[in-house]
Amino acid sequence: MQFPPQTTLLEIEEGSRLMPKFDERSLIPCITQDHATKDVLMMGWMNAEALALTIETGLAHYYSRSRKKLWKKGEQSGLFQHVVALVIDDDQDAVLLRVRIDGGASCHVGYRSCFFRALTRPGPGTDFHLTFLEKEKTFDPHAVYTTDQQGNPLPPKA
Amino acid sequence: MQFPPQTTLLEIEEGSRLMPKFDERSLIPCITQDHATKDVLMMGWMNAEALALTIETGLAHYYSRSRKKLWKKGEQSGLFQHVVALVIDDDQDAVLLRVRIDGGASCHVGYRSCFFRALTRPGPGTDFHLTFLEKEKTFDPHAVYTTDQQGNPLPPKA
Repeated sequence: MQFPPQTTLLEIEEGSRLMPKFDERSLIPCITQDHATKDVLMMGWMNAEALALTIETGLAHYYSRSRKKLWKKGEQSGLFQHVVALVIDDDQDAVLLRVRIDGGASCHVGYRSCFFRALTRPGPGTDFHLTFLEKEKTFDPHAVYTTDQQGNPLPPKA
Repeated sequence: MQFPPQTTLLEIEEGSRLMPKFDERSLIPCITQDHATKDVLMMGWMNAEALALTIETGLAHYYSRSRKKLWKKGEQSGLFQHVVALVIDDDQDAVLLRVRIDGGASCHVGYRSCFFRALTRPGPGTDFHLTFLEKEKTFDPHAVYTTDQQGNPLPPKA
């Protein structure tokens, strides 16, 4: 699958043709959102191959920067992401995937979303304390994964 | 404002202390979401100064890669983003801002969200045709901006 090249600013920003812009590392950032709840689940990266496979198969594929390889989400965990819509931003340098997720969870730590902690007392004197937004994990990563995100064996369960 | 340094994987991924990881360009990606509708509005970048100012003032600040300078969202347009929550992902290398937006719009092209177009016929034989998700612009960029995102004068209205 060959993506159309970027043309004029007007066509990129206001036109009706997908012309994704990959950065100097040949990657495009991808925000993944739960189609039903609209929660943001994760942020990942795609190279041209991952974006093409996502479009062709309807299943989210990413590029792992740490493992330097294509990564089909759910391959190890079974938590596949089914693409409902592939949305592009104005200058076509960021992708938003709206997905249905198998198992209702997405984050390798075990939470529904990777964004499970928030700074609760912002301001000049912040103590950088994070509050957990999800009370408990949706799944036990030790029951789902045998290796960490870098492909190393998971450490013993705490 | 000095951010805590990243420590162990366990503390980064499961701890309750903000330890943001800036990339090799000293930037961290930021997803911005409408707090009320949960629509994803934009994806931007922050350097340490932009993240610190966002936390200190409660107004979203970004770093413009094209203009190579700090950028207080709304400075030119008046469409300020008021931070409701600053959420961090598992490995603390991506920020999610939940915001209230003045004027109900965010995108410099005039739409509510920068993600206003989607690929509607994915599959192996896609024609890359994008469908507009917003029927009309929320504001006229010519009434709001005098320069484009690179700081150049806006071209005459089409």
